[in-house]
Amino acid sequence: MRNVLVIGTGKLAWNLIPALLQRGISVSGVAGRQQEGLARFEAAYHIPVFDLAWVQTRTWEDTLVVLAVSDGAIAGVATALAPALGPGSMVVHASGSVPLAALAPLGADRTGVLYAMQIFTFDSLADFSDLPVFIEGADGVLERLRPLAERLSSRVQVLDSASRARLHLGAVLVCNFPNYLYALAASLVPEAGMGAYDALVYEHVRKVFALGPENTQTGPAIRGDRATVQRHMNMLAEHPEAQQLYRLLSEAINPDLKEKG
Amino acid sequence: MRNVLVIGTGKLAWNLIPALLQRGISVSGVAGRQQEGLARFEAAYHIPVFDLAWVQTRTWEDTLVVLAVSDGAIAGVATALAPALGPGSMVVHASGSVPLAALAPLGADRTGVLYAMQIFTFDSLADFSDLPVFIEGADGVLERLRPLAERLSSRVQVLDSASRARLHLGAVLVCNFPNYLYALAASLVPEAGMGAYDALVYEHVRKVFALGPENTQTGPAIRGDRATVQRHMNMLAEHPEAQQLYRLLSEAINPDLKEKG
Repeated sequence: MRNVLVIGTGKLAWNLIPALLQRGISVSGVAGRQQEGLARFEAAYHIPVFDLAWVQTRTWEDTLVVLAVSDGAIAGVATALAPALGPGSMVVHASGSVPLAALAPLGADRTGVLYAMQIFTFDSLADFSDLPVFIEGADGVLERLRPLAERLSSRVQVLDSASRARLHLGAVLVCNFPNYLYALAASLVPEAGMGAYDALVYEHVRKVFALGPENTQTGPAIRGDRATVQRHMNMLAEHPEAQQLYRLLSEAINPDLKEKG
Repeated sequence: MRNVLVIGTGKLAWNLIPALLQRGISVSGVAGRQQEGLARFEAAYHIPVFDLAWVQTRTWEDTLVVLAVSDGAIAGVATALAPALGPGSMVVHASGSVPLAALAPLGADRTGVLYAMQIFTFDSLADFSDLPVFIEGADGVLERLRPLAERLSSRVQVLDSASRARLHLGAVLVCNFPNYLYALAASLVPEAGMGAYDALVYEHVRKVFALGPENTQTGPAIRGDRATVQRHMNMLAEHPEAQQLYRLLSEAINPDLKEKG
């Protein structure tokens, strides 16, 4: 596939397009429904911008169409684009939680997934070369998708929809849930705030990726230090929800705590 | 105080002593009970090493004695050292969870706390200049302790024992509990492992410290996306403990999920 057409004007498209351009990959353009979003891409990246309805009336040959749209819109946009897919073209979506099957109406021989594992923002551009990128598709699809993915990132891996769904669950576990715990921790000592934990969190995260989380579990729960666990539970007395979470997380870390806990 | 005497041969002492030396602070030596640990300090840092029992028989003048020993040993070691404290000397402990009151028998005018917020290791030396350091003590103690703490770090803050105990609880929330969630997430997709999440976690943590955790809560729970929450719960069906944690954390993030949850 000689060209990439990106559908969507959100954060992923915003980050993906410059990464493609930097690598000398031809970007046919970006398509969307909102003129304002498109104008932003035109101004920043100097690429053609298209109204999505117009894109559907054309024939796109030898093109990788990347659906960088919200999860709920993927199936609908794909179906609408089907008649516009010319020879040598295929459609991939870029979502962690949507199965490849959402593109099934277009046929297995021209649909796939290209999922980059990152939180994308408009503020700073992600460096794709070091991002984990997960691809999925039939053999013939992977044969053509993989070389392009490998121009984007050195960390391309084939992963099926079921595993990708678990990976997406994992992302909730490693970002969204810790975020709640961070907010709780920051609220405990308002005079110091979240900043008090920065060196600790960065060092812990560094160790987690260097040694694996199975080797970096420390703290009162794993030590079986019931006195500290109890003291911490008492400190959360006015926060029954947090107290229950403290107990359950401690018991999950160390089932021995359950007996007397 | 012109000199610092460090009691303890653990990770904190290992990191603190070179930080003191680098700043030109006079280190009288390090004291401990195990010859092997002491020899390591002597070889690496070329400072005097003392048996703890011998230290107790001397008189230490104009010296800041830092108790870098385990929480449970602090009160005992402090009491044993009391007779050895000469004019102008004071004792501080370096623990997050032990109150200043543990040193009360020595008198409020010569006891304090110097707590550096970091996970210390023997493998790599912490850069103290950017570590949050929390100090506590009577006014006269702080007057003498603060200048020394500020030579160590640019981030010195006075914090009382109750707040420091909550900070220590916070450390469990921001490191130990996320660690459990990391391990769970890694286990969900063994073919990708923990490494799959690295870019995501680092970017999330960067945003947390840049914007505050109250502004970085994303994911299905906060969006009220019951379908995804339910799908994730189903994926954890064989892991009832994790499933319960998923539900409780989601409900803590977004209490609206409780109604039909």
